[in-house]
Amino acid sequence: MLFYTEGGGPCHLSSFTQPFYFIDLLPAKNGEEQTMQFLLEVVEILTNYVRKTFDRSTKVLDFHHPHQLLEGMEGFNLELSDQPESLEQILVDCRDTLKYGVRTGHPRFFNQLSTGLDIVGLVGEWLTSTANTNMFTYEIAPVFVLMEQLTLKKMREIVGWPEGEGDGIFSPGGAISNMYSVMIARYKYFPEVKTKGMAAAPRLVLFTSEHSHYSIKKASAALGFGTENLILLKTDERGRVIPADLEAKVIEAKQKGYVPMFVNATAGTTVYGAFDPINEIADICEKYNMWLHVDGAWGGGLLMSRKHRHKLNGVERANSVTWNPHKMMGVPLQCSAILVRERGLLQGCNSMCAGYLFQQDKQYDVAYDTGDKAIQCGRHVDIFKFWLMWKAKGTVGFEQHIDKCLDLSAYLYNKIKNREGYEMVFNGEPQHTNVCFWYLPPSLRGLPDGEERRERLHKVAPKIKAMMMESGTTMVGYQPQGEKVNFFRMVISNPAATRSDIDFLIEEIERFGNDL
Amino acid sequence: MLFYTEGGGPCHLSSFTQPFYFIDLLPAKNGEEQTMQFLLEVVEILTNYVRKTFDRSTKVLDFHHPHQLLEGMEGFNLELSDQPESLEQILVDCRDTLKYGVRTGHPRFFNQLSTGLDIVGLVGEWLTSTANTNMFTYEIAPVFVLMEQLTLKKMREIVGWPEGEGDGIFSPGGAISNMYSVMIARYKYFPEVKTKGMAAAPRLVLFTSEHSHYSIKKASAALGFGTENLILLKTDERGRVIPADLEAKVIEAKQKGYVPMFVNATAGTTVYGAFDPINEIADICEKYNMWLHVDGAWGGGLLMSRKHRHKLNGVERANSVTWNPHKMMGVPLQCSAILVRERGLLQGCNSMCAGYLFQQDKQYDVAYDTGDKAIQCGRHVDIFKFWLMWKAKGTVGFEQHIDKCLDLSAYLYNKIKNREGYEMVFNGEPQHTNVCFWYLPPSLRGLPDGEERRERLHKVAPKIKAMMMESGTTMVGYQPQGEKVNFFRMVISNPAATRSDIDFLIEEIERFGNDL
Repeated sequence: MLFYTEGGGPCHLSSFTQPFYFIDLLPAKNGEEQTMQFLLEVVEILTNYVRKTFDRSTKVLDFHHPHQLLEGMEGFNLELSDQPESLEQILVDCRDTLKYGVRTGHPRFFNQLSTGLDIVGLVGEWLTSTANTNMFTYEIAPVFVLMEQLTLKKMREIVGWPEGEGDGIFSPGGAISNMYSVMIARYKYFPEVKTKGMAAAPRLVLFTSEHSHYSIKKASAALGFGTENLILLKTDERGRVIPADLEAKVIEAKQKGYVPMFVNATAGTTVYGAFDPINEIADICEKYNMWLHVDGAWGGGLLMSRKHRHKLNGVERANSVTWNPHKMMGVPLQCSAILVRERGLLQGCNSMCAGYLFQQDKQYDVAYDTGDKAIQCGRHVDIFKFWLMWKAKGTVGFEQHIDKCLDLSAYLYNKIKNREGYEMVFNGEPQHTNVCFWYLPPSLRGLPDGEERRERLHKVAPKIKAMMMESGTTMVGYQPQGEKVNFFRMVISNPAATRSDIDFLIEEIERFGNDL
Repeated sequence: MLFYTEGGGPCHLSSFTQPFYFIDLLPAKNGEEQTMQFLLEVVEILTNYVRKTFDRSTKVLDFHHPHQLLEGMEGFNLELSDQPESLEQILVDCRDTLKYGVRTGHPRFFNQLSTGLDIVGLVGEWLTSTANTNMFTYEIAPVFVLMEQLTLKKMREIVGWPEGEGDGIFSPGGAISNMYSVMIARYKYFPEVKTKGMAAAPRLVLFTSEHSHYSIKKASAALGFGTENLILLKTDERGRVIPADLEAKVIEAKQKGYVPMFVNATAGTTVYGAFDPINEIADICEKYNMWLHVDGAWGGGLLMSRKHRHKLNGVERANSVTWNPHKMMGVPLQCSAILVRERGLLQGCNSMCAGYLFQQDKQYDVAYDTGDKAIQCGRHVDIFKFWLMWKAKGTVGFEQHIDKCLDLSAYLYNKIKNREGYEMVFNGEPQHTNVCFWYLPPSLRGLPDGEERRERLHKVAPKIKAMMMESGTTMVGYQPQGEKVNFFRMVISNPAATRSDIDFLIEEIERFGNDL
């Protein structure tokens, strides 16, 4: 039972005569009443926020520059002090934090690959933080460890590995999952690197496409390969790796005496949403004995859709797969899995057998203590929200969500492909929900192709984006790519978005861009 | 306002005639009422859990073996299915998840370095998950990015760096923070490794104590140094590095032609709670031009205490410091900071300048887009709960908490040091809250020192621990260390713990151990 006044309404801290402080909360003696009141008032703030997030008359954000927030907004003071603030003030701080933030769950927030506010996922996170435990041992996270195990197996089945066999772990994001893949590949081919370092291996080279995520490059720097030993592959006009370029570069590397070890194929690139041809890449990996990793951080979700999973054909031939449920599947941040086909590598690569944590003489089956597989020690519980959403939606619920998002992006593509003032960055229907386009204000439409047009067009998207943020009505990303000047990258992963929100985005772009 | 019935009480989903499903929740049309009901019912489950967590008549855990939970406990089915479950069932799943978990906030949970359930921290996590955003850019996390910046500066001031200058980032745990320190050190001395790999550097060696955390070893394996190039330093009987051993091993490494690059000094070792003598180590680091990292994951919190911070004397001479507020400062998991004295290294080491995320033509000061400093791309918001707790407690509140925990551990130490049946693992008052001891059942007390006694004593702690877990009354860790057989490691970071809980732990150890 929550705490209520006799009248039945929730009791407010402010209705008491003296101010309360954190020392009045549990575990304080007789702290239960104030604790329940305090929690209830916070919940009121949060539920109001949730309600308004889905209300299209609410702004997506109330933009302020860093210096404005740092100077203090109407009493919202970010500075930390020596003395405690009252709980009343803490509630105000909570309200202000939300007020000056960005509503990533708003139906018109399209700025990132992770959008939306799934209510069941949210509930999962609330419970996770209340349980406040750590994934390293079964001892202190028995239920969560088993949920992780079952969910990873289910994901491996969906990838297509027989009986869902293999291994995996949830990690703090796709970049770390991709880093795992490189580490495990190195351990598979050159296990002595674990003890002797990179000096024990020949010069190893890695391959990934020009359009792939920058985390592959981060991993090659961090793990001691060096970014120069990451060879970038050419793509077609749609951003998909050209397999012949991979083979040519593998041969070239071998001729130089280097050892081609690892290929990353992206399933859903960050900007274009392109799916590399996995089967053709897998053929080359098999021919030259290289590890095949599929970075499905963004596109992995499509495996849940019978209609769209063919875009990842061949994924079952991968040695490892990154798949972020926190992107296309709408799971709250963070939730990323690295899946590995061969059992034992993850453990072999990372285990250090810490005696204080992974005692072998516990009373339960210590095979469930999965912490030594990780590069982390403590590990946040990222599984519960995902497991709970899966329970609540079923596999079919994820499928419906994904199909709907792809339908919406097709709607956007069809709406603008021939619309005056729009140019598509690449031709043809997008493979994922990424729709990449330029908006040309009327003043640019007559200009001949050339440097002036390029320079002016390059500035259009940032200007429109800035106006969007100032007005707070919607948010969408932009970037240049290779020689292409700034263009909008629209992505749809938000379950709250509808056709009318897509229409609204286009109206806003035209409203802000018309006079540029 | 939450949703209430006309009578004023909360309305239950079960009081409706038809079952509700996730598709009835927001963003569903007219989904607001069910959403508010659902959230309120979850909050009721969570607040009940919170209340019971602080009630000593509640068990710490209700232990079941993996196979028992996997077989399904009284209708609690972990398997995922194709079709959705009703929201009623989702609520049951939430209750069951908590029921079969471990109450890490319970006043008698002493099993890990991270214990306790801070109410303000909990509220911070609830808000964080409701805001559901990502730390990589100011654009979508303006308030959180600034909070992180201010808090890191404050932490650097407390470390003792002039004006709080330097750099830092919150990472997913101390192991990753320690990994950052090794990466940054390498970048400082051999920046070309970023592009050319480890082949561009001579044979580099790292130093850390035999008692240090295994994450240093994990980092040396992952980053391509190799665990053989991590040289373990001898410690005194209290687990503190012997500086002369460091210098001898540095000289030896140099004579072999290796390059000593990095020294980790631990401030608060995992098992003994030992503080390495930082000043003496810093002298050697300066003399031989090595990076000094202080792993204060566990002991960093003592910097908040005027009484205890002297144990980290010299920390201001470190080049980098790991400090986990989620341990000694009671912040919910995860919250770990890596602090770096020299500005620019973190960025230089990790930046890859991804155009789609870190556009330089944004309308705000992009120096606040901190994502490119990280090895992650997306990064969970770990700062808010910590910031909010600091607001609510003030610096003095953390100090009081830390002093209280150390007082309690002194109480335990004094209680058992001469008590019959107890042997301390090392002599003298512990430096941190770690109290390490053997309990000898009466049947072992007369045995002469020797193999039989060792073998039997080795089994005592695991047996007592198993009985504790089966009965669910309390939890404490044990492990061997070097040649020392299994002993209990008691640690106190839980703000709910009192002397009576310490007394209770001892009673339980004796109750379970008496007849062994």
